[in-house]
Amino acid sequence: MSERPTLVSSSKTFGGSQLRLRHRSQVLHCEMTYSVFLPPQSLAGARVPALYWLSGLSSTDENFMQKAGAQRVAAELGIAIVASDTSPRGDGVPSDPGGGWDLGLGAGFYVNATREPWARNYRMYDYVVDELPALVEEEHSLSDSRGISGHSMGGHGALVCALRNPGRYRSLSAFSPISNPMRCPWGEKAFSHYLGSDRKDWHEWDASELLSGASERLPILVDQGGADPFLETQLHPEALRAAAERAGHPLTLRMQPGYDHSYFFIATFIEDHLRHHAKALVR
Amino acid sequence: MSERPTLVSSSKTFGGSQLRLRHRSQVLHCEMTYSVFLPPQSLAGARVPALYWLSGLSSTDENFMQKAGAQRVAAELGIAIVASDTSPRGDGVPSDPGGGWDLGLGAGFYVNATREPWARNYRMYDYVVDELPALVEEEHSLSDSRGISGHSMGGHGALVCALRNPGRYRSLSAFSPISNPMRCPWGEKAFSHYLGSDRKDWHEWDASELLSGASERLPILVDQGGADPFLETQLHPEALRAAAERAGHPLTLRMQPGYDHSYFFIATFIEDHLRHHAKALVR
Repeated sequence: MSERPTLVSSSKTFGGSQLRLRHRSQVLHCEMTYSVFLPPQSLAGARVPALYWLSGLSSTDENFMQKAGAQRVAAELGIAIVASDTSPRGDGVPSDPGGGWDLGLGAGFYVNATREPWARNYRMYDYVVDELPALVEEEHSLSDSRGISGHSMGGHGALVCALRNPGRYRSLSAFSPISNPMRCPWGEKAFSHYLGSDRKDWHEWDASELLSGASERLPILVDQGGADPFLETQLHPEALRAAAERAGHPLTLRMQPGYDHSYFFIATFIEDHLRHHAKALVR
Repeated sequence: MSERPTLVSSSKTFGGSQLRLRHRSQVLHCEMTYSVFLPPQSLAGARVPALYWLSGLSSTDENFMQKAGAQRVAAELGIAIVASDTSPRGDGVPSDPGGGWDLGLGAGFYVNATREPWARNYRMYDYVVDELPALVEEEHSLSDSRGISGHSMGGHGALVCALRNPGRYRSLSAFSPISNPMRCPWGEKAFSHYLGSDRKDWHEWDASELLSGASERLPILVDQGGADPFLETQLHPEALRAAAERAGHPLTLRMQPGYDHSYFFIATFIEDHLRHHAKALVR
């Protein structure tokens, strides 16, 4: 059993509690900080479901909680939100030797690294799928009804975590996901470092590859900004759409004209995503 | 006439435009950055009213726009939001010789400084009351229907700007304002530097003092968190309440149990404030 997390900060918001906590991660071999929003129903004693949120490159556990405006609707629906950090952190955790923001710190890509120097710490997949939910469900008395969503690198993470674990999540969505990381510069850089140069080892970390073998038909909602500067080079939602069509997988991919890659885009459509998750999470 | 501002960034949000712009301030003798949210009605050609937002200590023009979640309701109501910076900035602009965050950069207190070394740049009152509205109303085709609000130091600023300028604003509100700056450490430090040691010169910059002489009965909505760590030492809403009672001024002061001084508090109640302003601004 992990030791209990320690409270970093607590603020009341929309009748619920916005918390940051730190704990020692057994999986990542470092101290980690996470944020959780507990809706009023949780504070009143209900065991509420949770939406797990995975953020994008260079973010931490805080960006979504501060900028997406999700707590208003989560409070109404009675859904907790759990936001992890985007990589291991701290002394001894390696980062991009080239100083980039797209590898290493802030860029864990939600995979389990197999190559040095990454393999000891960079196991964000195990962390967000197993260790963190086990911890927060006990610590904050959450139910095991889980949804998962994320943005950009975190949209990729949400898709991969759900597609690899039938039955573990009841709902799935993504904003501007890196939909086909095997075939974009961000993904190729990260995967070659974390997973090695053999591209066969990359398939199990690529949503557009995984979709063809998905045994569970979890409906996916994806929003993508039409003015997103990364759309053509990095994100490739058309690969996800093609894979979903081939597999007969239910995907609602909404192109939103004029919207970019920022939290101003996420804030606009987060209510739709929360209601999408609530259909599966709130009984 | 000022030269036109230059665009720093633009993001679509809630069907409107979230913009940052820079311009040369004649009043402050430096480059300034401001943020503006233009609702969909403005983009469709309507001359919409604007809520002027003044932020608190150490903030910039960005905090409110990123964290308050105000754009959703402003888009519904057809109100623009204009957020200034909290002080002059840049090379040659003096700051706290002691390195504090409660004087100088990020801490202009929305006064016109009369003492050295502040008097040349620190004229945030003239900037937010006159120069910035003239600029943005022309640049963004806003109407001259103005509301004003703010947080903490900016709540003080909003109250002072409105109370000193009958007829200039149609609506007024504040979050956790520094209600009686003459009698709190933040205000005493700032005023003694910007205005000098003669406390008689401070009265015209103190909302609780100004309220007794207000010639206009503009209804004021104030929200104050009950768990705000600055409540007892710095904010003194009871002084504002007493002044309003003495003057017969319409003040709705809501103590919100459990809420702190953060944007998680502001986000919870910003919708109420926007609707309070809309009653006066939107016809």
